[in-house]
Amino acid sequence: MFPKNTWYVACTPQDIDDKPLGRKICGERIVFYRAQEGRVAALEDFCPHRGAPLSLGFVSEGKLVCGYHGLEMGCDGKTIAMPGQRVRGFPQIRSYPVEERYGFIWVWPGDAAQADPAKIPHQDWYENPEWAYGGGMFHIHCDYRLMIDNLMDLTHETYVHSGSIGQKEIDEVPCKTTVNGDEVVTSRFMENIMPPPFWKLALRGNNLADDVPVDRWQICRFTPPSHVMIEVGVAHAGMGGYDAPPDHKAYSIVVDFITPETETSIWYFWGMARKFNPRDKALTATIREGQGKIFSEDLEMLQRQQQNLLDYPERALLKLNIDAGGVQSRKILDRIMAEEQAAGAASASATATA
Amino acid sequence: MFPKNTWYVACTPQDIDDKPLGRKICGERIVFYRAQEGRVAALEDFCPHRGAPLSLGFVSEGKLVCGYHGLEMGCDGKTIAMPGQRVRGFPQIRSYPVEERYGFIWVWPGDAAQADPAKIPHQDWYENPEWAYGGGMFHIHCDYRLMIDNLMDLTHETYVHSGSIGQKEIDEVPCKTTVNGDEVVTSRFMENIMPPPFWKLALRGNNLADDVPVDRWQICRFTPPSHVMIEVGVAHAGMGGYDAPPDHKAYSIVVDFITPETETSIWYFWGMARKFNPRDKALTATIREGQGKIFSEDLEMLQRQQQNLLDYPERALLKLNIDAGGVQSRKILDRIMAEEQAAGAASASATATA
Amino acid sequence: MFPKNTWYVACTPQDIDDKPLGRKICGERIVFYRAQEGRVAALEDFCPHRGAPLSLGFVSEGKLVCGYHGLEMGCDGKTIAMPGQRVRGFPQIRSYPVEERYGFIWVWPGDAAQADPAKIPHQDWYENPEWAYGGGMFHIHCDYRLMIDNLMDLTHETYVHSGSIGQKEIDEVPCKTTVNGDEVVTSRFMENIMPPPFWKLALRGNNLADDVPVDRWQICRFTPPSHVMIEVGVAHAGMGGYDAPPDHKAYSIVVDFITPETETSIWYFWGMARKFNPRDKALTATIREGQGKIFSEDLEMLQRQQQNLLDYPERALLKLNIDAGGVQSRKILDRIMAEEQAAGAASASATATA
Repeated sequence: MFPKNTWYVACTPQDIDDKPLGRKICGERIVFYRAQEGRVAALEDFCPHRGAPLSLGFVSEGKLVCGYHGLEMGCDGKTIAMPGQRVRGFPQIRSYPVEERYGFIWVWPGDAAQADPAKIPHQDWYENPEWAYGGGMFHIHCDYRLMIDNLMDLTHETYVHSGSIGQKEIDEVPCKTTVNGDEVVTSRFMENIMPPPFWKLALRGNNLADDVPVDRWQICRFTPPSHVMIEVGVAHAGMGGYDAPPDHKAYSIVVDFITPETETSIWYFWGMARKFNPRDKALTATIREGQGKIFSEDLEMLQRQQQNLLDYPERALLKLNIDAGGVQSRKILDRIMAEEQAAGAASASATATA
Repeated sequence: MFPKNTWYVACTPQDIDDKPLGRKICGERIVFYRAQEGRVAALEDFCPHRGAPLSLGFVSEGKLVCGYHGLEMGCDGKTIAMPGQRVRGFPQIRSYPVEERYGFIWVWPGDAAQADPAKIPHQDWYENPEWAYGGGMFHIHCDYRLMIDNLMDLTHETYVHSGSIGQKEIDEVPCKTTVNGDEVVTSRFMENIMPPPFWKLALRGNNLADDVPVDRWQICRFTPPSHVMIEVGVAHAGMGGYDAPPDHKAYSIVVDFITPETETSIWYFWGMARKFNPRDKALTATIREGQGKIFSEDLEMLQRQQQNLLDYPERALLKLNIDAGGVQSRKILDRIMAEEQAAGAASASATATA
Repeated sequence: MFPKNTWYVACTPQDIDDKPLGRKICGERIVFYRAQEGRVAALEDFCPHRGAPLSLGFVSEGKLVCGYHGLEMGCDGKTIAMPGQRVRGFPQIRSYPVEERYGFIWVWPGDAAQADPAKIPHQDWYENPEWAYGGGMFHIHCDYRLMIDNLMDLTHETYVHSGSIGQKEIDEVPCKTTVNGDEVVTSRFMENIMPPPFWKLALRGNNLADDVPVDRWQICRFTPPSHVMIEVGVAHAGMGGYDAPPDHKAYSIVVDFITPETETSIWYFWGMARKFNPRDKALTATIREGQGKIFSEDLEMLQRQQQNLLDYPERALLKLNIDAGGVQSRKILDRIMAEEQAAGAASASATATA
């Protein structure tokens, strides 16, 4: 179960640079490619001729050409041409609303009539000279909500990432969760602690001493369907913490876009936008490599947790204070999915009556 | 669904040279081996003692010996002997009609009483000094009918095999499909075109210029259950095309025997019999290598098409003029399978009445 | 189907030396680790907090710490502590009776109230200066009863292990099967035969000539649920055979503990305890390597046999005299499993009535 009338990150522009990309999203096989004038397009990955995946084809003058028998498909799902054929009666395939924004390709897997590009969440850091961004993608076999839980409860850093960003103070300092409409915020502020290895690296990256006490913060922001932006950082202790001046802190946003592939697998887009020393490309590469290594530590845990939950479907899990972020996020998701179902039922009923 | 009262290619003689071969055909696990006097035999791959696969055993003096406890099996499915045992009461296992012919081992997976070796389709080119043959085998995860479709509509060469045998003229010249009893023929004749790379190679192989216009032909012949013989070739333009004298053309038959393993997988035996320069073994090797590379290009397309069709079982596919060969072949198959089912039901009913 | 109120070998002490071990036994996911004072513990591999596998965690001061969020679990399945949490209301997870004995960790997957360490079968050879032991473990995809069959009918040695311990005389000399309560014994005594390669090696290992006739014996002892101890050996012919003095024979026990993982997979603990030249560690290593190689020859046969039986579930297998050991063992298992089911039903009924 996932919301469908919403924007998900499908891929990056580089993924469709050379050829079409076939990717299953929310259970739907979709092909992404660049159509006329470089505009991105998304269609069912199913040629109306014989069912071949269109993603095995190629793009020619903005048209998606099936790699099996040369059918030329338009970005509206209508066949444009096929060698030796009249194509007017060919069945139309589904096209999906799709947008290129903030360095990602976004797709709307639900009702196209409701798709509004303005609903794509704004990313302050994108193409902003004060910020630098680096990131990557993992394919993980778990329910997308297990990843939301993971990111909304950072006490796991103490255990899963003990050698990089974990430290016992995360466990010791309580977090606070608030709900503002459809946004859930879980935050934790730690004062006068020693920075763990990753944050030492970040401090040095901003030309700051890394062997002195710091204040550290984590502010996790969930918005539906599955975006989790986490403000993270450290400042030399006593300089104002989160509000310290830029040259006394290392401040970043962990960017997480989680896209369901199936009920039990995801495309996980992770990255870090940093607001210090943004022009240092070597630092961007170093942080990206470090973050990739750290985030890969979650994979086995999430996948094995998923297997356990499938094996023991009847078990109720605990909902502790540290789980409040995930619990509140799931409540919002449950409400949205119920609304989608009710709207679908009402629409079906109206159709039946008419 | 596949016809069962028919001959399928099971393997080649080399496959059983050294030891028995276990291979699933039409859903049945079968062991093939050489019994007395070198005659090929085919049995259920199931030892009546404890169910071990007989294909893990060995052949001794023409008897198939189970590799687990030494049961000696005869080619009629009756146990001959077992160390320390009286075997007269042992249950008989099924034996399958099997023939060695034209460089292949053929098996009849259906009712043995109906098996007639005369029904194995004659191969003119076999052990004929005017012809040379080379081929190979692929295991592919698709319904055998998708491969029939593939071979009866060669417009796909333009896209799937664009670097070897494909050319735009295949798309431009219409094909013609005729049905003669249980044979379906789809043919295309292209005149005064430049030969694509594979046919340049073939022309050189017959000591002909490869940089001049040619006439090219493709005559696809389907016969049940799943044999597709394709006459292919090029002749220097204006020399008579298909009917040109042998020293002005390169003429071959693409040999395709498609054997269902399961509903969605096949053993695909492909090869090329050529009627030019037949004694040139290096040329045979070169053509075989080239053909293997070309035919391997179909694998991903067929397997991904199969996955799509399984995911979207309700979708109706188009039946265009270029698909007529496959469509007509499927009609014949549907009729044969309906006849087999009706005969099976009548036989069951007669048994019940008696 | 397997007995559950019984002891199975779960792993070796070395398997939990450095970190917890997660292993599925009789369909239950279990984590094994060393708790307080080095005592072994076994728990459901399921953290009551969020379902993470506890086997991905670590042991700290005898407590099993979940590697996800730091929950500290006691060996009784009760949560001891969790950073920042009151844990008294946390649900208890299941703990399993577990014992360390004879170089193995034993687990009782059934009703803990019935677990009695005295029921672990005594192993004479363990830490006995007259004996030396070496062994290993295989994961095999077959029903545990197929392995019992295998070990209770050693005629398979002639075929599966023809290059090491097999010889035609095994087939030629009848075996005898007796049932004593819950013990099944199948024995075979071969006189005045030449030793096969493995036994030549063993004779040399006891400083005995290996090129003279020997008497050879095989006494297979099954006890429930799935232990098969096989007395094996050779003595120079005419010296008393099985009862020959120690310096005229090579006498060993093949140790087999078979632990079901699922209905169709096992953890197979194999080894050899020898009662000759016990201090020769190089000999122990050589025998262990040889036995490992020999026993690995059974894997493909058992796994392919299992596949065949799954494909043809309706087939009745033969029960010959050589199969009597397996057949009688299965009878005992059937009775035990029926008793367990009846006791379970009675207990459920009593609960319903009360």
